[in-house]
Amino acid sequence: MKTAWEYRYAHRTQKMGSSVIRELLKLTAQPDIISFAGGLPAPEVFPVAEFKQACNYVLDHFGAQALQYSTTEGYGPLRAMIARNTSRYSVPIVTENILITSGSQQALDFIGRLFVNRGDYIALESPTYLGALQAWNAYGAQYIPVPADEDGMIVDELEEALRMGPKFIYVLPNFQNPSGSTMSLERRKKLVELADRYGVPIIEDDPYGQLRYEGEHLPSVVALDSAYRGYGEECYSGNVIYLSTFSKLLAPGIRLAWVVAPEEVIKRLVMAKQAADLHTASFNQYVAYEVGKAGFLDEHVEVIRRTYKERRDVMLEMMDEMFPTSVRWTRPKGGMFLWGILPDFLDAADVLRVAIERKVAFVPGEAFHPNGGGANTMRLNFSYSSPENIREGITRLGTTLKELIKQNGHG
Amino acid sequence: MKTAWEYRYAHRTQKMGSSVIRELLKLTAQPDIISFAGGLPAPEVFPVAEFKQACNYVLDHFGAQALQYSTTEGYGPLRAMIARNTSRYSVPIVTENILITSGSQQALDFIGRLFVNRGDYIALESPTYLGALQAWNAYGAQYIPVPADEDGMIVDELEEALRMGPKFIYVLPNFQNPSGSTMSLERRKKLVELADRYGVPIIEDDPYGQLRYEGEHLPSVVALDSAYRGYGEECYSGNVIYLSTFSKLLAPGIRLAWVVAPEEVIKRLVMAKQAADLHTASFNQYVAYEVGKAGFLDEHVEVIRRTYKERRDVMLEMMDEMFPTSVRWTRPKGGMFLWGILPDFLDAADVLRVAIERKVAFVPGEAFHPNGGGANTMRLNFSYSSPENIREGITRLGTTLKELIKQNGHG
Repeated sequence: MKTAWEYRYAHRTQKMGSSVIRELLKLTAQPDIISFAGGLPAPEVFPVAEFKQACNYVLDHFGAQALQYSTTEGYGPLRAMIARNTSRYSVPIVTENILITSGSQQALDFIGRLFVNRGDYIALESPTYLGALQAWNAYGAQYIPVPADEDGMIVDELEEALRMGPKFIYVLPNFQNPSGSTMSLERRKKLVELADRYGVPIIEDDPYGQLRYEGEHLPSVVALDSAYRGYGEECYSGNVIYLSTFSKLLAPGIRLAWVVAPEEVIKRLVMAKQAADLHTASFNQYVAYEVGKAGFLDEHVEVIRRTYKERRDVMLEMMDEMFPTSVRWTRPKGGMFLWGILPDFLDAADVLRVAIERKVAFVPGEAFHPNGGGANTMRLNFSYSSPENIREGITRLGTTLKELIKQNGHG
Repeated sequence: MKTAWEYRYAHRTQKMGSSVIRELLKLTAQPDIISFAGGLPAPEVFPVAEFKQACNYVLDHFGAQALQYSTTEGYGPLRAMIARNTSRYSVPIVTENILITSGSQQALDFIGRLFVNRGDYIALESPTYLGALQAWNAYGAQYIPVPADEDGMIVDELEEALRMGPKFIYVLPNFQNPSGSTMSLERRKKLVELADRYGVPIIEDDPYGQLRYEGEHLPSVVALDSAYRGYGEECYSGNVIYLSTFSKLLAPGIRLAWVVAPEEVIKRLVMAKQAADLHTASFNQYVAYEVGKAGFLDEHVEVIRRTYKERRDVMLEMMDEMFPTSVRWTRPKGGMFLWGILPDFLDAADVLRVAIERKVAFVPGEAFHPNGGGANTMRLNFSYSSPENIREGITRLGTTLKELIKQNGHG
């Protein structure tokens, strides 16, 4: 029976419906599957004891405030803490440059809401983060894909895209989801200059920036933009909106992330957030502040780095050993993902179907390509599974790939 | 200096910017003002001890899950608990009829996102909830106001509105924000019949339904719609989307609310939520389930009712004593607000300016009128202030009103 709602959906719902990430999260819930599909942090590194201590402290000392409605911008001390940390390792900013959001996905949604008219173009790396595409599809965005390699977006190809008039540029410079690539310093500088020359602003999405397992930390695009403009200690008012999150540093289940932007943009984002959900949970913000205030995050990120570095190393080592030579893959210097490229004649979705029978899973790469293509690509997550499961899962997957390549007469 | 973002805002931002609630929340933060302006629950009734116990239990037993990403629909046991409670006091539904949202404001936003094309009309009570107008303004909604009195929307006037082709009808049948009025049973039944006859669905917003201080509980519109259609114990698939929240029963700072809707609508809402913020904080959902699972909410609501009934009674008693006779007001049977109507020659915004000097605050009623008007109306919140502060605040406000009426030569 049709409900009275059936013919009342708005135009914008026509581009909704891609629920790839969601279906994948369901896959990972089957306990007997070794899943490299999700984008989950390792639960072993969640600082449960510190959360417990913080919850008790907050409820003992600030129960009435932490359980009450609060301001849309976010909890003042938490915003100030983030501003201090950002000033220390990235770009000098003040509290007024910060908005707390319910995860970075919400920040991506608000950016679509503020800037994307139906039909507007966005220049971005191909492949790129699926969640950003989902957020902006809802506002009728279109995409100008810019090719990328192991050093990130190929900035020399960006100039042509900029002449097509995109509303903004979207980049994930560090250990990109899905490819694992990191944009080189030279390209970052060139990106800042080109964006300034064409007057096109930049969204820098940086959930993994601190999860580096080798090599030197590279300055963020927002920091380079600030330096390029000669800003000092004042309020940042440049060309970049920078996103980061506690999902990878603390835990995703508290849904806490933040936006760094010029104060005028923050004011507009606050209006968007007010209409969207009033404010992010006060309790979660108080607790995150308590967990983070005494420098705990600096220690904790070391634990995460050690854990994920080992898992990345095990995965790469096993792939070297078990994967057929006709498959290529990236060797990310950080983050949570690596990217595989299968021989052209293999479709990763077909591989997945067989792999699931063998109780191992990954994400076919096609959905990460804004305008299609990449049917022979795959994303593998190395942060969630234990080293033992990575060994077993990569063995299963390698065996599957070898068989499928042989079946296709190329063995 | 203008940033590169300045001329890049989308059309839809032109209707953003009303930040009345937000500015009001700032007012309430000044400690020496007695504020009847906000819509805050009394912090004295927050079950802090139960939250503490629940946080510890959840982190001891479900730390890895509660801090991890989870499904967009919400935590299964919490959805099932809400479905059971809803079936018990309202309408028979199942888990699949429930979506968890980050506050009811988010549910209102998603309803706009799913159903409102720019220029679509929504039929609603005038005055109505400001947050709904803010949510739907962002999608370019227009409004057909239907007059209301102490028995809620005057349903006889709705029929004319329905012939104008609204996308849906929005009602707050219980202790409405801002007016405090409650829709009579007869009108609820008529509303269900009219909506069915014209094929126009209904959004029923019910944050205060359980906060009744006198009289009999009235069946919700969704329950009447279900009975009208002859549904039994199956999945609800009728004409109404019903919204409620833990903000008033537990605490608003955890941002937890829910939508009851036909399963097909829930599926679409899930897609909207996936693009908007992936999911509501897992930790908060685990904690709310632990707090609520053993029937605690039934006891706790009694505490809230007792507390708010006393405050309502004190406020009404003091108004009877202190307010000039040319001011009229509602006598709500529940909820958190009452509504004042000043003599035509007084503008409530002018009154507020003087009142703030006398350290008492309220909300001028004009903003609650979708198409303007009501400059002589005011909303008073009675849940947040202590009885002592209500006595003092109403005394100050009554004195101010008497003076202003006298100054205008009508004393």
